[in-house]
Amino acid sequence: MNQGFSKIETFRFRVEPFHVDLSGHLFLGVLGNHLLNAADHHSSRRGFGIAFLMEHHYTWVLSRLSVEMTEWPTQYEEVEVETWVESVMKLFTERNFLIRSAKDGHIYGYARTIWAMINTETRQPENLLTLHEGAILQWVMTPEEKACPMEKFKRTKGRLASGEGSTGEQVATHYSDVDINGHINSIKYIEHILDLFPREQFLQYHLRRFDIAYKTESYLGDTLTLSLERDATGDQVEVRKHVGSSEKPAGEVVVQALLEWESEE
Amino acid sequence: MNQGFSKIETFRFRVEPFHVDLSGHLFLGVLGNHLLNAADHHSSRRGFGIAFLMEHHYTWVLSRLSVEMTEWPTQYEEVEVETWVESVMKLFTERNFLIRSAKDGHIYGYARTIWAMINTETRQPENLLTLHEGAILQWVMTPEEKACPMEKFKRTKGRLASGEGSTGEQVATHYSDVDINGHINSIKYIEHILDLFPREQFLQYHLRRFDIAYKTESYLGDTLTLSLERDATGDQVEVRKHVGSSEKPAGEVVVQALLEWESEE
Repeated sequence: MNQGFSKIETFRFRVEPFHVDLSGHLFLGVLGNHLLNAADHHSSRRGFGIAFLMEHHYTWVLSRLSVEMTEWPTQYEEVEVETWVESVMKLFTERNFLIRSAKDGHIYGYARTIWAMINTETRQPENLLTLHEGAILQWVMTPEEKACPMEKFKRTKGRLASGEGSTGEQVATHYSDVDINGHINSIKYIEHILDLFPREQFLQYHLRRFDIAYKTESYLGDTLTLSLERDATGDQVEVRKHVGSSEKPAGEVVVQALLEWESEE
Repeated sequence: MNQGFSKIETFRFRVEPFHVDLSGHLFLGVLGNHLLNAADHHSSRRGFGIAFLMEHHYTWVLSRLSVEMTEWPTQYEEVEVETWVESVMKLFTERNFLIRSAKDGHIYGYARTIWAMINTETRQPENLLTLHEGAILQWVMTPEEKACPMEKFKRTKGRLASGEGSTGEQVATHYSDVDINGHINSIKYIEHILDLFPREQFLQYHLRRFDIAYKTESYLGDTLTLSLERDATGDQVEVRKHVGSSEKPAGEVVVQALLEWESEE
């Protein structure tokens, strides 16, 4: 089954003009999209991609994404993304990424993701170890084989868990927010979260670390409420959903995120 | 100066999973982004790209974009974009595109764009025929050399020109809307325009033709008002800007667009 592929694969992209923000650096959402595409290519070429899973009524669901960058690439830079699987457990698999300059190889940062496999009929998680008779295990690279020198996913502190923050920004969802399944796509949440911050935030700071947990799906037509709490260690954002334009004070939590900034000085 | 390049060049992209809409077809905004990137590559490789212009305090400004599609590519399809310059006049140049399947070469559609060159200090148009001693002229392919079988830009009918439509949808602008210059980017207007339509529009129809005229710039923090008028021949959208959250009844027109739909049946 190995088909001569190595466990690790490298993908390349170019930072296009509309893919940089007002500070001239790659948008986090665009980087996230490239990471998810790299994951899709890597798994597809090794027989456990979405297309194979769909035939068996399974699909991958992104559960966590963490990105840690010491430097952000700028317009027209060529970037390489390495991706590999760090572990496979019964209900989750961890996939890591290294992000570097294609020109001189210097490292911009790393990313970690956690994925579940769900049954598309029951929407329940399935056992990854029985998928294709455990074939996915042959691709695992332990931290000893390939290091990913960033902390694992940081938990949100639950400060906003009471729903008291529901006075937050209301965001209606539209055509451009959703994927082929009508779900708000993982990248659009990131854009809506960053849109909470004023222009100065991106000129005076860069995002050093971003952690996001996807808790449940939201759909075209749902209204999202984004609550932001800021403190010295970073920012926490909670996204809740309200079906239609319901005025209920606190809906179900869809997404939680943590943001850590570093001064540009 | 010709450097062995042909007048026409072909670029390739893959329709990524997050680049298809709820009907499974490529987003117009993503296609538009690929067209603008193709234009940027083509002109840069031939010595009249933005980087060269910026050294001389000039830049390209997109004035009109028209896209006409008989079919929209779907997820994972490989697409080729051909681009060439059809004409160069004193104040404008026309650049065309052909969009086809990389697999079997069948044609999805065409696009036309019109660009002005402006002085970045005065923001006034400059004479294209004197740029680099008219070097751009060597790249022109007349319609006899390379046909672009779609009608030229369709003018809006001015029905909304009185500003009476200012009861339209209000859209605040955020970090994710703007480019490196702090201008709302050309593609984001397209997304905001399509977001005016309900889900059913995209399931029952596909966009056959889209024309957009960029009249002036808007900036991060401006509020946009989008007015939609529908009739049997198509839809017209006008976007006006209000500086900050000004409540003035009608601001300056930023963008006008025409949309023509074709039934999926």
